[in-house]
Amino acid sequence: MTDAMLAPGSTIGILGGGQLGRMLALAAARYGLKAHVYAPEPDSPAFEVAARHTVASYTDEGALVGFAASVDVVTYEFENVPADTAHILESHVPLRPGARALAVAQDRLEEKTFVSNLGIATAPFRAVSNETDLRAALAAVGRPAVLKTRRFGYDGKGQVIIRTGDDPATALGAIGHVPAILEGFVPFSREVSVVATRGHDGSVAAYDLCENEHRDHILHITRVPGTLPANLCDEARAIAGRIATALDYVGTLCVEMFVVETDGEPPRLLANEIAPRVHNSGHWTIEGAKTSQFEQHIRAICGWPLGSVALVGSVEMTNLIGEDMAAWPELLAEEGAHLHLYGKATARPGRKMGHVTRVKT
Amino acid sequence: MTDAMLAPGSTIGILGGGQLGRMLALAAARYGLKAHVYAPEPDSPAFEVAARHTVASYTDEGALVGFAASVDVVTYEFENVPADTAHILESHVPLRPGARALAVAQDRLEEKTFVSNLGIATAPFRAVSNETDLRAALAAVGRPAVLKTRRFGYDGKGQVIIRTGDDPATALGAIGHVPAILEGFVPFSREVSVVATRGHDGSVAAYDLCENEHRDHILHITRVPGTLPANLCDEARAIAGRIATALDYVGTLCVEMFVVETDGEPPRLLANEIAPRVHNSGHWTIEGAKTSQFEQHIRAICGWPLGSVALVGSVEMTNLIGEDMAAWPELLAEEGAHLHLYGKATARPGRKMGHVTRVKT
Repeated sequence: MTDAMLAPGSTIGILGGGQLGRMLALAAARYGLKAHVYAPEPDSPAFEVAARHTVASYTDEGALVGFAASVDVVTYEFENVPADTAHILESHVPLRPGARALAVAQDRLEEKTFVSNLGIATAPFRAVSNETDLRAALAAVGRPAVLKTRRFGYDGKGQVIIRTGDDPATALGAIGHVPAILEGFVPFSREVSVVATRGHDGSVAAYDLCENEHRDHILHITRVPGTLPANLCDEARAIAGRIATALDYVGTLCVEMFVVETDGEPPRLLANEIAPRVHNSGHWTIEGAKTSQFEQHIRAICGWPLGSVALVGSVEMTNLIGEDMAAWPELLAEEGAHLHLYGKATARPGRKMGHVTRVKT
Repeated sequence: MTDAMLAPGSTIGILGGGQLGRMLALAAARYGLKAHVYAPEPDSPAFEVAARHTVASYTDEGALVGFAASVDVVTYEFENVPADTAHILESHVPLRPGARALAVAQDRLEEKTFVSNLGIATAPFRAVSNETDLRAALAAVGRPAVLKTRRFGYDGKGQVIIRTGDDPATALGAIGHVPAILEGFVPFSREVSVVATRGHDGSVAAYDLCENEHRDHILHITRVPGTLPANLCDEARAIAGRIATALDYVGTLCVEMFVVETDGEPPRLLANEIAPRVHNSGHWTIEGAKTSQFEQHIRAICGWPLGSVALVGSVEMTNLIGEDMAAWPELLAEEGAHLHLYGKATARPGRKMGHVTRVKT
């Protein structure tokens, strides 16, 4: 045991009380660690599996200081942790991953610029502050293009496509005239992601490439291994590793990428988004890999050695969104289907209620 | 979904707050269920992963009634639940497994009689209430023999061996002159166990036979599959199934057995003990089987279909007792070792602190 290692019995502070926080708390419990979950919503699913919880706003300095004093390390389940919140916590206790990862991931312009500066391909992009910028950006990247808010976008929210004939001013209005980024439309054939963990010692362990299928802009199915050539999978994993290292990252992250397959050319990867946290496209690792993304994250933030990311078999993870959850009795009865439910009371449309993982060995 | 099935979001009441209760609560969480753990010890490890907990004595009727009112089903992690406790709970809410399993498992004489009446072989035994009984029993079963208290024995506690020349009166004194059973000494070559689950619909799913190695009367290592012939393994699983069915059992149980291998004869099984609960020799199922014993127990008590008990590979589970836990940094770093720690603050000698499971596929 080195000084950087937290001992079993330590308390992990988790910002955010949704299903990711819940699965992080469950992974921590398995290692004899306590979880203290901090979230504003009194009915947060993660509270149910945590030794302690705090219901408070992310801007409540007194509550944050008390929380920091009660834990040995703080992590988070969502990227939109306010910078001030991160700084308050960081001044009392290690925050892993750190504020740098949050700053980059919270702003699509910073994110694309950061990735691009590492020599990693992205869609063409331009910063947009007003209609003049937008017109210039459209001239540079062409149409169709996607106008996205720089901050607080997820699951397809905060973005609008601008096609030939569309009025740029209307598009700016649709996203609320906030600072934006214009991205060239990418004729991608597939969406993929890499979930990887970087340890406190700088080692990186990247899981196999995930091939993702979305429905209504929400992840629907992840398949691993996919059907892309091995060299492309290796390249994708290396990209995730380079990003993690450049961010001096500690914990699990996810890099979402597009695959562009143009006739007669080898397929190409374009990095799209960094999620500085465990990720839905990595849920398959609970049964499908030797160590889950949640366990890896806990290992990393505790300063522990990373586990094996070897695949156990061929895996398919399907999200249960809203009313999909009604199929739980059939899924429980299905041979080899691993059902996970998140303990959410109401199955609202678009709400992630659970997932099911099927492993073929 | 049938009427007998609890819906996700239901609350599982768990009597007992040790590592078994903790792992039951973790399994419940994975299915979107809440856990309410009831235990007298304020620092119970299971409290840390439960939505709610009650610190109260098992004889506190008011607390028991309140607990029963707050849950949809009650189960337990230990067999010594007082009969009155069981009856109070049962009058308010389903208790699974039921009071009958507790009554049989709490009393070694009832247990042996019950098993023997099913036509299942056991060591020879006699009831012992006083010295006269004991002398007659010794004459019947021979020496060496083992005198055991009828109630409240575990991990080798409450028993004494009577060899040639030993004074029966001294032996009775050693166990405190309580009602006892005398068992013929069994020249067993191995200790094995079967962990099995019986569903609410009467279906039984038994895991592969566990070969167990003890150290100081405490389980040390479980190996699955073992090296015994397939027909003996099948017979052992069938015995567990017959016991579960005869008890009208709902949930996971464990039947510990001896294997007697006499030269020139095929090996024989003798049933020794029934644990009406999840069991240490089944911890390997978390990674080593398609459904863990904890998930199976939760499925059964919720009236849900049982999952697959198929083996994932060749498995070895080693308990971490007392100071064994100090090896946690090495175990975390060991490729393919799955470390589980129970969140207990003090590593007292003989205390079960965690376990490690190694799976070879």
